[in-house]
Amino acid sequence: MEAIVSSFPVYFDYQVQFTHGLFTKENFLLAEVIQQSIARPSKLLFVVEQEVADSHPMLPTAINDYCQYHGLRQCGPVLFIAGGEAIKNDSRQLQQIYQAINEHSICRHSYIVAVGGGALLDMVGFAAATAHRGIRLIRVPTTVLAQADSGVGVKNAINYFNKKNFLGCFAPPYAVLNDFDFLSSLNLRDWRAGMAEAVKVALIKDAEFFYYLQQQAQALSQRDLPSMQHLIQRCAALHVAHISGNGDPFEFGSSRPLDFGHWAAHKLEHLTTHRLRHGEAVAIGLALDSTYSYLAGYLAQSDWQQILTTLQDLGFALYAPELSQQLENLDHPLNIFHGLREFQEHLGGELTIMLLEKIGQGKEVHAVDIAVFQQAIALLREQSCKQVPEILSN
Amino acid sequence: MEAIVSSFPVYFDYQVQFTHGLFTKENFLLAEVIQQSIARPSKLLFVVEQEVADSHPMLPTAINDYCQYHGLRQCGPVLFIAGGEAIKNDSRQLQQIYQAINEHSICRHSYIVAVGGGALLDMVGFAAATAHRGIRLIRVPTTVLAQADSGVGVKNAINYFNKKNFLGCFAPPYAVLNDFDFLSSLNLRDWRAGMAEAVKVALIKDAEFFYYLQQQAQALSQRDLPSMQHLIQRCAALHVAHISGNGDPFEFGSSRPLDFGHWAAHKLEHLTTHRLRHGEAVAIGLALDSTYSYLAGYLAQSDWQQILTTLQDLGFALYAPELSQQLENLDHPLNIFHGLREFQEHLGGELTIMLLEKIGQGKEVHAVDIAVFQQAIALLREQSCKQVPEILSN
Repeated sequence: MEAIVSSFPVYFDYQVQFTHGLFTKENFLLAEVIQQSIARPSKLLFVVEQEVADSHPMLPTAINDYCQYHGLRQCGPVLFIAGGEAIKNDSRQLQQIYQAINEHSICRHSYIVAVGGGALLDMVGFAAATAHRGIRLIRVPTTVLAQADSGVGVKNAINYFNKKNFLGCFAPPYAVLNDFDFLSSLNLRDWRAGMAEAVKVALIKDAEFFYYLQQQAQALSQRDLPSMQHLIQRCAALHVAHISGNGDPFEFGSSRPLDFGHWAAHKLEHLTTHRLRHGEAVAIGLALDSTYSYLAGYLAQSDWQQILTTLQDLGFALYAPELSQQLENLDHPLNIFHGLREFQEHLGGELTIMLLEKIGQGKEVHAVDIAVFQQAIALLREQSCKQVPEILSN
Repeated sequence: MEAIVSSFPVYFDYQVQFTHGLFTKENFLLAEVIQQSIARPSKLLFVVEQEVADSHPMLPTAINDYCQYHGLRQCGPVLFIAGGEAIKNDSRQLQQIYQAINEHSICRHSYIVAVGGGALLDMVGFAAATAHRGIRLIRVPTTVLAQADSGVGVKNAINYFNKKNFLGCFAPPYAVLNDFDFLSSLNLRDWRAGMAEAVKVALIKDAEFFYYLQQQAQALSQRDLPSMQHLIQRCAALHVAHISGNGDPFEFGSSRPLDFGHWAAHKLEHLTTHRLRHGEAVAIGLALDSTYSYLAGYLAQSDWQQILTTLQDLGFALYAPELSQQLENLDHPLNIFHGLREFQEHLGGELTIMLLEKIGQGKEVHAVDIAVFQQAIALLREQSCKQVPEILSN
C-alpha cells in the first residue's frame, strides 16, 4: 500500500545579546525583544535564582519598575528558586514553575524570563519547553559558564534516576540576554570555573582564541572584566555557530564535538558528589583527554604542555583523586571509565569521543585504549603533586 | 555590543505506512524500518496497550517471534499499559516507561514501539520525546482515530492540573505503521467515533473526500473495511500534508485549521467527564461550528444540512445536554463557552477559530458572537429531539 512520506524543515532563530544593567529603565533591550501587541500585551513570568536575588537585593524591585516603565505585563510576583545542580534532581522545583504557568495562564505566546545560572536555566527551560508544548523562554544567564556556554545553546534538562540530564528536550530559547553586571557578584571559584568551556571550544575550533586565553590567563584568573567579556563573547559565538552551522543542531547523529573532555567530567561530578563544579570537572576532563591525545600520538608534546599550563594559569586543578579510585577494576561502578559507557548510552549510537590533533583542531575516534587512559591519569596525578590545587582550597 | 544571531532549520522526516499482519514473520515492514548495524543491533522496547493485548492474546508471542526471526534486539518483555485518556492523568504510567528506558539502557538511537490508541501513543510519545532528549518512536496505532489522525501527527502530551495536554512537546515520530487488522477488534462505538476527524479534515480541505464520506456513510457506519481503509489513508494523507506543507508544523503562530470543531469538543470531553469519546465530542463540535457558520451567514443552508445528515448517517449524535448547561451564565465554569478561553490560552496568541465557508473550504475568524452560538446550540438541541442518539446508547 502506498506510503505517506512527511518531510519538512522547522526554522528556529534566536539572538544572544550582551549588555550592562539589563533591568535599568534606560536599557531598552528586554522591552525591544518582547513582541508587544497593543490589543493584547504579552505576559511575562519572571523566575530568579535565590542566590542571585540575595546578591542583588534591589533586583525584584528593578524588575517590577522596569516592567511598569516599559508597559510590560508582568504576571504575579517574581518567583524565587534555589540554584545549583541539586534543583535538577528535585521535581518540586519543576512543579512550582508549572504551577505558576497554570495560575497566571501563561500561554505559548507569553514569555518566561529566567535569571540565574546554568542549572536554573536548564530546569526552567524544561518547564517552558513542555508546558503547552513550548512557551517562549528568555534566558538571562548570570554566571560565566551560562553566559559563555550552557545558556546560549538549545538544550534543557533535569536529572532523573540520579542521572544527569536524563530528561530533557531540544528547545531553542526565544532570546538570551547576557548582562555582564551579574558577574561582579560571582565568587572567585565560579568566576574561574566558567572558563573551562572556553578553553574547550578554543582547543577544538579556534587556535587564535586559545592563544588569547593563554596570554590573558593571569588577568582572567584575577577577575579582569574586559578580558572576561571578550572570553564570553567569543565562546558564545563559537558555541552558537557550531549549533547553527553543523547541520545537526538537535543531535540526531552520533557526533558531539562540543563534548570534548565531557565523558570524564560528567562522571567526575557524580563521583565527587558535586564537590567539583561542572567547569572544574571539565578542566580535568580536558587535561585527561589532551594527555591521552598526546600519549596516543595524535597531539604534539608542546601543544599538550601549553594546554596543561594554560589550564593551571587559569586557576584549574588538573587532577582529582576520584580519577584513580578502583582504576584497575573496570567493572566497579566507581571506576572512571564507567563514564565512557554512560556517555555512549545517553547519546546513543556508536561511541564517539573527541580528541585533539593540534590546538584548534579536534579529531573524533570511535574506540579508545583504556591502558593509555590509565597512563594519562598516572601522569596527571604525578603532575598534580608538584602543585597545590589552589581552586579546591577555595 | 554586537549581538549573535542564530538561525537554522532542523529537518524532520517520517513515513506513514499501511499494512496487514504487521507482526507476522513474512511482513518485512518493521524490520526494514529499523536501521540495523551488524556491529551494534538497535534496541527495541515494545509498549502495548493492555486492551489491545487482551483482544489479541497472541500478540506478545508474535512480537517476540518476529524480533527473533528478523534479528531485532528486543529489550525486556513487552510492557503492558492501560489505555484511554485516564492514563494521561496519572504520572505513574509515564514513570513506568521512563523506568523501562533506564533499566534497558534505551538510548537516543534505540526504538520504542508503541502499540495502542491515541492516549497511549500520546503518553508513550511524551516519554520517548523527553528521555535522553528524544528516543526514536515508532507508533503502531490500533484505532481508527489514531490511524487516521492523532497517531500520524507531530504532537505528544499528557494531562496536568486536570487540563488536557497541558504538558507535551512537538516531536515527530520515527515512523507510523498502520496495521488495518487491529481495527477488527474495535467495538462499534470506537469504530465510528474515529471517523469524526475525517469529516473535519474533509470539510476544511477536501470537498471530494467529504462527498465520498457522505456516499459511503452507511457502509462506514456498518463496518465496511475497504471503505474504512480508504477513509484512514485519505485522512492521514491530508493531516500529514497539512503538517508538512503549512509552513508552521510546530505551531509557532496562532493559526490552527485542524482544530476546526475542537474548542467545544475539548470542553465537552471535560464537561461529560469523558462519557463522550474524543471523536463523539468532535462530531458535536463540528455540528456546532457548522451551524454557527450557517447562522453567521458564511455557509449555505444546503451545505449545512448535508454536514449534519452525513454526521448522523455515520452514527454520530449532534448534541449533548452539557452544551446547554448554564448557557446564559457565561462566567460559570460549566458553561461551554469557557472552552473558547481555554482553547485560546492553550494555543496562545490571538483567538483564532476555524469556521466554514463551504464544504471543503474553511475560514478563520478572530471574534465570535456568543448569541449566535447560543442560537446554534438551541437549533442542535431541537434537531436532536427528533432522533434517538444511537451512539450514546452503545
